[in-house]
Amino acid sequence: MNTETEEYFLNRHTVRTFTSEVPSKELIRSIVEAASHAPNTGNMQLYSVVETRSPEQRALLAPQHFNQPAAVNSPVLLTVCADVRRFERWCEVSRAEPAMRNPQMLLAAIIDAVAFTQQIVTIAELHGLGTCYLGTVTYNAPKIAEMLGLPAGTVPVCCLAVGYPSEPGVESERLPVEAILCEETYPERTDEEIRELYRAKDDYEPNRKFIEENGKETLAQVFTDVRYPRSNNEPFSKIFVDFLRAQGFEV
Amino acid sequence: MNTETEEYFLNRHTVRTFTSEVPSKELIRSIVEAASHAPNTGNMQLYSVVETRSPEQRALLAPQHFNQPAAVNSPVLLTVCADVRRFERWCEVSRAEPAMRNPQMLLAAIIDAVAFTQQIVTIAELHGLGTCYLGTVTYNAPKIAEMLGLPAGTVPVCCLAVGYPSEPGVESERLPVEAILCEETYPERTDEEIRELYRAKDDYEPNRKFIEENGKETLAQVFTDVRYPRSNNEPFSKIFVDFLRAQGFEV
Repeated sequence: MNTETEEYFLNRHTVRTFTSEVPSKELIRSIVEAASHAPNTGNMQLYSVVETRSPEQRALLAPQHFNQPAAVNSPVLLTVCADVRRFERWCEVSRAEPAMRNPQMLLAAIIDAVAFTQQIVTIAELHGLGTCYLGTVTYNAPKIAEMLGLPAGTVPVCCLAVGYPSEPGVESERLPVEAILCEETYPERTDEEIRELYRAKDDYEPNRKFIEENGKETLAQVFTDVRYPRSNNEPFSKIFVDFLRAQGFEV
Repeated sequence: MNTETEEYFLNRHTVRTFTSEVPSKELIRSIVEAASHAPNTGNMQLYSVVETRSPEQRALLAPQHFNQPAAVNSPVLLTVCADVRRFERWCEVSRAEPAMRNPQMLLAAIIDAVAFTQQIVTIAELHGLGTCYLGTVTYNAPKIAEMLGLPAGTVPVCCLAVGYPSEPGVESERLPVEAILCEETYPERTDEEIRELYRAKDDYEPNRKFIEENGKETLAQVFTDVRYPRSNNEPFSKIFVDFLRAQGFEV
């Protein structure tokens, strides 16, 4: 690996503001094609991606992503779906009887979809594009599915806002590698060990500002009380599980 | 992106046979560290990875991967977990009350874990290593969790066999980009359109051999009757859902 590529992986960051330049259809197509060489389950490629460029569709989708700036301002949205439907259609025309609507195959399709999405991110970023995952795609999956015409057997899992970055963007801090890499077994950690692993994050200046702005005592409270509160997580979980069933999965 | 890197994405393939050379701890650590810059949900980094190198642990894990050659012969296994546990421990020491054991946060953790895994794959492969996802990790999640000491709040999602390739490896065919890239909405496809999208795959010589060896009429039947039959998918789904509940998730 050359030094430039190595630096890329260490310094990459999400981009949320884009210029008005629209990535060409050909470029997106070539990125998607290259990304389709990502590993996947049994080479079934249990995913599809819906490309949204039309101003009408983008205007419809943005509110489903709570009008976050990346959703509103990016010229292209790529909604990646776990997709067992296409595989089932192939089985239909091949005298084969698939059993795909169960948790294992749904999970396989989700894994395929995410690995494919992450490959799109890497290839797009190496082409000079900026990307932002919109986590809201799973919150409002039912409405997004309706807008994109997603049939039974498909589930939107990731959505990427894609475009040319309009500003350098800001790197996010990460936990030290000791926090994520375990040797042989998962360690039990004392309170002090946990505090130590999160110390740099807790002390990071932009995070301290974040605590203050939100009127909280700790950074963790910003996550639990403001960003991912129970009052969102639980109702959106119910909506999502109901949606999985509506899409024909036995979960 | 330079030409070499561009070629890499188009030509990469899974490796299942490895030399006896063991990737150093330092190399794996540096790959994991770089991969931790992958995008993730709200910068919570809801994943951990357990590195298995000891001969004893490898010998215990291999049967849980049905002794597939990549599991038996690779010098290093990386089991990547969706992990809300570490985040919850941080909340515990930060006077914060998390709500992570629900489907939305589990899905967020799975997405984080897979994007991180795929980033490991790309970085490792660009370093000249070979990798193979072991899909079996979700089939035998309960026993693997026991062996790796995975506590409540963690779920093994991906497992990578990692090592130096002992042979060039074989590229897998992929569906044409039209099969996976949808413009604006997901298309309804006629039987003939589906046949056309899968024609090259059905006609691919190694796949034809595969049909013959398995005594089937079509390639799709090899998938539904031999590789991913209902008689595996459904019992392993039940085991997995029970495991999620045992790990404390309300699913």
